[in-house]
Amino acid sequence: MPISLGELAARFGCELIGDPDVIVKGVASLQNANAESLSFLASPSYKSLLPSSKAAAVVLRADDAGACRVAALVSDNPYATYARMAAAIFPETIHEPGVHPSATIASSAQVADSAHIAAQACIGERTSIGEGCYVGPGTVIGDDCAVADDCRFISNVTIVKRVRIGARCIFHPGAVIGSDGFGNAMTPEGWVKVPQLGGVLIGDDVEVGANTTIDCGAIGDTVLENGVRIDNLCQIGHNVYIGEHTALAGMTGIAGSTVIGKRCMFAGGAGAVGHINICDDVIVMARSYLSKDVTEPGAYVASFPADNAKLWTKQVARFRRLGALIERVKKLEK
Amino acid sequence: MPISLGELAARFGCELIGDPDVIVKGVASLQNANAESLSFLASPSYKSLLPSSKAAAVVLRADDAGACRVAALVSDNPYATYARMAAAIFPETIHEPGVHPSATIASSAQVADSAHIAAQACIGERTSIGEGCYVGPGTVIGDDCAVADDCRFISNVTIVKRVRIGARCIFHPGAVIGSDGFGNAMTPEGWVKVPQLGGVLIGDDVEVGANTTIDCGAIGDTVLENGVRIDNLCQIGHNVYIGEHTALAGMTGIAGSTVIGKRCMFAGGAGAVGHINICDDVIVMARSYLSKDVTEPGAYVASFPADNAKLWTKQVARFRRLGALIERVKKLEK
Amino acid sequence: MPISLGELAARFGCELIGDPDVIVKGVASLQNANAESLSFLASPSYKSLLPSSKAAAVVLRADDAGACRVAALVSDNPYATYARMAAAIFPETIHEPGVHPSATIASSAQVADSAHIAAQACIGERTSIGEGCYVGPGTVIGDDCAVADDCRFISNVTIVKRVRIGARCIFHPGAVIGSDGFGNAMTPEGWVKVPQLGGVLIGDDVEVGANTTIDCGAIGDTVLENGVRIDNLCQIGHNVYIGEHTALAGMTGIAGSTVIGKRCMFAGGAGAVGHINICDDVIVMARSYLSKDVTEPGAYVASFPADNAKLWTKQVARFRRLGALIERVKKLEK
Repeated sequence: MPISLGELAARFGCELIGDPDVIVKGVASLQNANAESLSFLASPSYKSLLPSSKAAAVVLRADDAGACRVAALVSDNPYATYARMAAAIFPETIHEPGVHPSATIASSAQVADSAHIAAQACIGERTSIGEGCYVGPGTVIGDDCAVADDCRFISNVTIVKRVRIGARCIFHPGAVIGSDGFGNAMTPEGWVKVPQLGGVLIGDDVEVGANTTIDCGAIGDTVLENGVRIDNLCQIGHNVYIGEHTALAGMTGIAGSTVIGKRCMFAGGAGAVGHINICDDVIVMARSYLSKDVTEPGAYVASFPADNAKLWTKQVARFRRLGALIERVKKLEK
Repeated sequence: MPISLGELAARFGCELIGDPDVIVKGVASLQNANAESLSFLASPSYKSLLPSSKAAAVVLRADDAGACRVAALVSDNPYATYARMAAAIFPETIHEPGVHPSATIASSAQVADSAHIAAQACIGERTSIGEGCYVGPGTVIGDDCAVADDCRFISNVTIVKRVRIGARCIFHPGAVIGSDGFGNAMTPEGWVKVPQLGGVLIGDDVEVGANTTIDCGAIGDTVLENGVRIDNLCQIGHNVYIGEHTALAGMTGIAGSTVIGKRCMFAGGAGAVGHINICDDVIVMARSYLSKDVTEPGAYVASFPADNAKLWTKQVARFRRLGALIERVKKLEK
Repeated sequence: MPISLGELAARFGCELIGDPDVIVKGVASLQNANAESLSFLASPSYKSLLPSSKAAAVVLRADDAGACRVAALVSDNPYATYARMAAAIFPETIHEPGVHPSATIASSAQVADSAHIAAQACIGERTSIGEGCYVGPGTVIGDDCAVADDCRFISNVTIVKRVRIGARCIFHPGAVIGSDGFGNAMTPEGWVKVPQLGGVLIGDDVEVGANTTIDCGAIGDTVLENGVRIDNLCQIGHNVYIGEHTALAGMTGIAGSTVIGKRCMFAGGAGAVGHINICDDVIVMARSYLSKDVTEPGAYVASFPADNAKLWTKQVARFRRLGALIERVKKLEK
């Protein structure tokens, strides 16, 4: 949807340095932008691309405005402001309300009139779908679920059972919410399955990535508070609690019953063992995992980035001889 | 299904200390239980919650009975006994036999009369589905598969082709069984796909987690023996063999042709490289992987739990200077 | 399809040592082969099985022909030659052209006459499906996609939106292509979603494994060049670029905006952080990840294979005392 720079500045509270009547029709990176594109500068590493950008306008911090040779939309938080403007230029597709004839709706399900249930979707018994929801093709929402307004299930999502979902949540394809947790009791005859009887409680404005799995609680619920963001291929065990605005990047795994505070960030492939408590504002770096309670905010890490294989092999050999080295030092000390 | 403590004690072989006529209607943790809940005490770390529990009854070991102020169901294996009792209180939903009109059954498929094939499910050519099976919504079972009695495919499961499945197995949503293994032969023109011609052979009482993938064999079968338990988001390569009652926690990866013994346990994010043999009763700790044959039962590990980022950065620097340190010690020794 | 050794030798350019009229009907490993099986010897580790093999014929290098007591098909690249012969013996199932009545095709979609659209599949608006394509059961191909000829979507695949796919690509079950990248901008009120507005561009002869996820670009496209091979449960972030014939084994994760060269190989559980450049011909070993630009071809690694748990615990303690050890050496030096 084409929008003028003047309107963007007014709607999103920016100072505009430039012609308010210029129209933007799309978005682009600084180097690929043309006279109809909105661009942005948020990270200092792209600053060198600013002077040569041919964008219609660039969203940027006041400090960077001097180096900008096109129109500037000045914001304290250019990335967030760009995000809101981009959403205005490219609004979500509006789907007509209604149920596709190939969808299967259980007799006791309640679907709001303004919801769209797409082809091949299934809605289970005693499940309610709120106003404005989009349930994409092939999505299965099982029994005893409650979905608040304006949620989107992109396609082939599975909401298993006993899942309550707040407003404006987004579930990407292949996400599975409410699957049985991994509960097994050993006996001399092998494993006995421990029934997984809880549900999943998801707040407002939560987003769950493609092929991510979130298990139901064994007893009681697995909980994601408002504003939690989870990327693709993450695993959330039974009875995990995730505080508000915590974000987990791709391939993060959180084992069962762990409690995570607010505004934590887990980088790609990070994680935590089960049954620990992690305070607010903890950052876990790529491929690192927490193994015990964390009571101090801050960054945590324990990964080695890859080295040249020959060097690394030597390092591992040195590491394996650390005990011998310590003995040699002891001897020298005597 | 409400059950009296007397009946629970009799059916599951426990001593009951308390009133046999008390009825339980649900389950709860020690601290959340009320007068209608069954609870359990299996791990010593929850022992302090026992005296104040308001449960109708607690399943526990004889040693713990003294500290219990409500009825006690005494068992040598309280977790397994609780699991069986919980399954009795909350029996699986019974699905009416029959094929939903939106399901697609190939003309040469054989579906037992007592099986339930849910909405949008597909059953392929020459595939048989046993008595009492539940094939949930959106599940695709491809060609040339054989499923024994009483299996459950929760929803959106994919059984690709040439998969034989024993009795009472459970497949969680998004699980993919029988996908092509990763077989590629390099040529000067690029990769040539190596046809993956084997199947998957799954024993009785196997459970496979959400979004887990199990590849078919390249030649011959990938095998999961009776009682194997696999959690979410695990990857099992072509021609892997997994022995009875081995359990893999979430995000475990086993590369092709590896043979794993009986009763092994892989913790979250653990794994093994391809083409190795792992004996019975091996435990692989969180985020650790086996790189060569294991002939001794026991626990294996090689991961560093995350540290404060500043400390870790120093540690990595010290690690990288190990070679120099060794030289300094050599010099001192001379 | 039974084929004579003479025909195999002629079609695939091998020297045949043996009777050209012998017919093979299947494939098998050296030890399981019978008089109707084709087998192969590619890795020296299986050489000891050659003399006792009962195969009809073995594809092998000239050097190994002497030890072969059955017919030999001599090739410089026995694995690739075997792959091509196996594909001739077991050709892909031909699916009748046509659209299954339970499939849902958007009114503006274009499906080639020779394509097969299976049960419960959905094709979105403005999407085109090329000649000879197979769109398996439960597959959802969303809006604004273009699929070239002879692609196969096995089943329950999700192609989200704005994905352009070259010829002869294969997508295994549960793969998700074109899901939103993980773009979030922090504000005092929580995360703001950054619209993900790009697409995915996939070359010819690309294969994507089961439950792998490939995000669309934030701005501009995520790109997989010709011949890229991706195994199961991999995650490819937004705006990643992967060069020709690069292969990623299972559970590999590549974070956003990283550029990978040609013919790279990532072993199981490997990966790369975001925003880095990796040159051609880089090998990343199992469970290792790249954290900065790589300009030299070769092998990179930084993982510790699992050790006996007691030994490892000692090693970790020694590692944590490295600082103290360095101090002790300093003291000795003084």
